[in-house]
Amino acid sequence: MTSKSKKDELQAPDRRNFLTVGVAGGAALAASAVAGRAADGEPAITEIQDWNRYTGDGVDATPYGSPVEFENHVIRRDVPWLTADPVSSVNFTPLHELDGVITPNGLCFERHHAGTAIIDPAEHRLMINGLVDQELVFTMEDLKRFPRENHAYFLECAANSGMEWRGAQLNGCQFTHGMIHNVMYTGVTLRHLLEEAGVKPEGQWLLAEGADASAMTRSIPMEKALDDCLVAFKMNGEALRAEQGYPVRLVVPGWEGNMWVKWLRRLEVGDMPWAQREETSKYTDLLPDGKARMHTWVMDVKSVITNPSPQAPLTHGKGPTVLTGVAWSGRGKIQKVDVSLDGGRNWQEARISGPSMSKSMHRFYFDFDWDGSELLIQSRAMDEEGYVQPTKDALRAERGENSIYHNNGIQTWHIKSDGTAENVEVS
Amino acid sequence: MTSKSKKDELQAPDRRNFLTVGVAGGAALAASAVAGRAADGEPAITEIQDWNRYTGDGVDATPYGSPVEFENHVIRRDVPWLTADPVSSVNFTPLHELDGVITPNGLCFERHHAGTAIIDPAEHRLMINGLVDQELVFTMEDLKRFPRENHAYFLECAANSGMEWRGAQLNGCQFTHGMIHNVMYTGVTLRHLLEEAGVKPEGQWLLAEGADASAMTRSIPMEKALDDCLVAFKMNGEALRAEQGYPVRLVVPGWEGNMWVKWLRRLEVGDMPWAQREETSKYTDLLPDGKARMHTWVMDVKSVITNPSPQAPLTHGKGPTVLTGVAWSGRGKIQKVDVSLDGGRNWQEARISGPSMSKSMHRFYFDFDWDGSELLIQSRAMDEEGYVQPTKDALRAERGENSIYHNNGIQTWHIKSDGTAENVEVS
Repeated sequence: MTSKSKKDELQAPDRRNFLTVGVAGGAALAASAVAGRAADGEPAITEIQDWNRYTGDGVDATPYGSPVEFENHVIRRDVPWLTADPVSSVNFTPLHELDGVITPNGLCFERHHAGTAIIDPAEHRLMINGLVDQELVFTMEDLKRFPRENHAYFLECAANSGMEWRGAQLNGCQFTHGMIHNVMYTGVTLRHLLEEAGVKPEGQWLLAEGADASAMTRSIPMEKALDDCLVAFKMNGEALRAEQGYPVRLVVPGWEGNMWVKWLRRLEVGDMPWAQREETSKYTDLLPDGKARMHTWVMDVKSVITNPSPQAPLTHGKGPTVLTGVAWSGRGKIQKVDVSLDGGRNWQEARISGPSMSKSMHRFYFDFDWDGSELLIQSRAMDEEGYVQPTKDALRAERGENSIYHNNGIQTWHIKSDGTAENVEVS
Repeated sequence: MTSKSKKDELQAPDRRNFLTVGVAGGAALAASAVAGRAADGEPAITEIQDWNRYTGDGVDATPYGSPVEFENHVIRRDVPWLTADPVSSVNFTPLHELDGVITPNGLCFERHHAGTAIIDPAEHRLMINGLVDQELVFTMEDLKRFPRENHAYFLECAANSGMEWRGAQLNGCQFTHGMIHNVMYTGVTLRHLLEEAGVKPEGQWLLAEGADASAMTRSIPMEKALDDCLVAFKMNGEALRAEQGYPVRLVVPGWEGNMWVKWLRRLEVGDMPWAQREETSKYTDLLPDGKARMHTWVMDVKSVITNPSPQAPLTHGKGPTVLTGVAWSGRGKIQKVDVSLDGGRNWQEARISGPSMSKSMHRFYFDFDWDGSELLIQSRAMDEEGYVQPTKDALRAERGENSIYHNNGIQTWHIKSDGTAENVEVS
């Protein structure tokens, strides 16, 4: 912070014009292509601001840094009426405030079933038991002696966009699509650990169990466990955050977030899937005929426009406009993203910028000149396996409206002439 | 945090053995390949811990999250004796505590010349003046109407490893190599902004100026400005941190960090380089004959082993050991990294894991069985242009020891039989 005491020492501030040299007539000029921002009378460029005048805090002030005060509105938000108690609830990533493909650790959405466990890593153990040659218990130090890998992956809750099955409900992409984050993980491969224990031939399934008070348990087929799963202890370079499973979590790339067991304490090898609460009464998709789809693990291709959107209206008027959003698929990379400005009648290809990594979030942009008319904006992603994001109506025709899971339908925002935006449905 | 009040309600804790099923005889087993961790008498696996018993904080507790208390030692550190005042000093990234390739925003090293400026983005302006068709002033909203790009780049201070020119000085990679971070940026291309202003044919140089109290100024050749420079407003997805130039900084990929002007307020186009303080008396390389190299912008190929290292000794004894480190080059991607365990006599190729992006940090691993003997460990990187990291002696033979800048020499750690490590030199 600028030192108040230093300011107080100074009287009668010197307001000399520090930028008149090089600026014609001393007047600030407006950028030509970005209309409506004439600089006449704008004082900022010709005055010495506090930040020019006073030295700021030194390098010893914040050993671990935090965002600046002007960004205090950029936070995870929960919806108090959504659940009975915040220890078994969710908060949402502020997608409309982010850009690029990395979600910073402080803003990754949380979903808990018994609150955040705070675990002393020196006391934590990971056990492998069941149909193995040798049952094993690992300390955190043990785990860090196995070969490590680094991968960026999205984690999406199966219930992301779940409220939208029954029509446009929540007014903002933080709430409609914010149960997702995209993080670079460091961990050891689950395959290496299972090989260390020696999986018996009949060991075709794995039960992952968490150490929190909910003792979260999910069944994972051995084929996936040996493919690309990680036992991760770092996210975006540093230790896992407590709310993301510190000191160790399971990473199940492309599959629903509930399977990425946090605070991982046990892996049991078995010969058939378990039928735990979180894979029977929850995380199954109830169909119109009363049957439920089980084991619907893959998070299919999906996208959403993050800006403009209800929480991030257009405030600059007509002219050059940046439309942006994110796309992802549990089946690999995103091949392309199309954008519509007229509710899905006409489509144009968006520009993907930033690294394209398998089962990781992609960032797209669509730069256009807004004429100030109303728009119905949509994005539609296609993944490298050729899957195309469906309309919500197409999903409902197939699966009805009983479920809250696996809604990857196309989202529509209605942009009004004043730049505000609303969550709507088009047919 | 686990609720203390909930704990107090419970008397005579039930210590039933929640993991006896599946564990032979109720005893925890040690991982076989990671020696020396026999589990006899270890209580953790057979007791119910607080984090199993009590629910933790809910999703409304931390709208912007922070690291867990067990990681409180993972911080940027400054060296108080290094400079007269922390407002014109540096702190260092804790490389030995990180993994992967992303530096989290809270741990990115800082270098200030007049402390951290805290700037109201609504008041901030960026001006382009000098040899242009039209002088322009941009608000932050104006800037966000130009096409954006996303790239991960390392930023290394020219003085990183500077103390090491005169022999092994600082005992830990945080201090020898910690003036570097690697971040995913979102911004608009400098090229787009300069095209908007219209650079006159004689405009071959650019002066970038910061809005902090030091009014940092550096000359940049127009060829680089039009190539890959960004005017960035996001890092790792969220707004720039204040200490990294909020609301907007220059990104000059692969070039020395001092040119990445923070709190960017002005870009002046000229026909020759300026001769500002930070490119004459500072950030030049004084040679033995009294002449100084100027304009030594590119940060050449370099690497360092982060673990084990003096701040991160080996604590697990003999057997499977993960050696890891980072490598980078201002000329592109890293082609390969070699590791020596005997002070540079024999070399073996390390494994690179994670995305390989141009002018971005790469992560390497070398998995080996440590026999408990003393080691002299080194890493040596080669970039895609074929440049190989030199020894410190080779550098000194070329440039002497007057400079503190551009030391990309091979670093040696002496690993002792007890696993502790020390900064040493080998010839």
